[in-house]
Amino acid sequence: MKNRWVVLGFLLLVLLSLALGARLRARPSDARQADRLAITKLFDEQTVSWNRGDIDTFLQGYWHSPELTFAGGSGIARGYDGVLARYKKNYPDRAAMGSLDLSNIEIRFVGPDAALVLGRWHLQRASGDIGGVTSLVLQKFPEGWRIIHDHTSVVADSK
Amino acid sequence: MKNRWVVLGFLLLVLLSLALGARLRARPSDARQADRLAITKLFDEQTVSWNRGDIDTFLQGYWHSPELTFAGGSGIARGYDGVLARYKKNYPDRAAMGSLDLSNIEIRFVGPDAALVLGRWHLQRASGDIGGVTSLVLQKFPEGWRIIHDHTSVVADSK
Repeated sequence: MKNRWVVLGFLLLVLLSLALGARLRARPSDARQADRLAITKLFDEQTVSWNRGDIDTFLQGYWHSPELTFAGGSGIARGYDGVLARYKKNYPDRAAMGSLDLSNIEIRFVGPDAALVLGRWHLQRASGDIGGVTSLVLQKFPEGWRIIHDHTSVVADSK
Repeated sequence: MKNRWVVLGFLLLVLLSLALGARLRARPSDARQADRLAITKLFDEQTVSWNRGDIDTFLQGYWHSPELTFAGGSGIARGYDGVLARYKKNYPDRAAMGSLDLSNIEIRFVGPDAALVLGRWHLQRASGDIGGVTSLVLQKFPEGWRIIHDHTSVVADSK
């Protein structure tokens, strides 16, 4: 009789381990849906901050780490402070910032807590519109999804 | 006696499941070292193919899928065939291709089978050198690591 309980106990442990393994391999689709919504919300909040002329709050969508990277036509900016400095240099005032629109957002999950996002960006400005494509790699931290790498290009004929 | 074997069998299963779970959570550093070497080897092989003027073999470093994407100053190219066509249009002959050098390769693993790579590229050409930065997202498939997304920028003063 005692052995039967040992067997049952082990059986439960096996099932638990297998279940945990499966969860790690692929999050259930409803969790993915929550992740998609959280990522979309992050971009929406960033857009609102940008269009208010608030680069500091806009930056909160990025990973607050010296390992954050930003690549583009001017090379590579490193660290949260480096990326913030790059934004403030390239967009010194609200006229330069203009009105941001992010569109055609495509989210691909590449790991349990990692996503690759491809999208188009557009700045409507009195001095002339500008826009292009952006590739973002995001990771899920205890505080939420954050951009850990940004590669942004200007595309000449983008509208 | 019979139950003892059942218990031992379950114990083995539990250990196996736990081991598998741990492997999925974080690959051991020696496996990561093997992944790093495999990714570096992929780039080395791509460079050799490029410098032989063989774009078709160079492309084999990319995911052979309609979901492959390539972003840059000319927008987004989609699918293996689309990316191949873009390369062949932009680099019609060996003079345009020049001699490729990839440097400052930084590999970050963002999931059990996913990596983000940041690097610098340079083409030495008689008609004028060109270069910049590249962000690559790779995934590990049964056939090996492949680039699933490439975002490449020209940087004006890159050497």
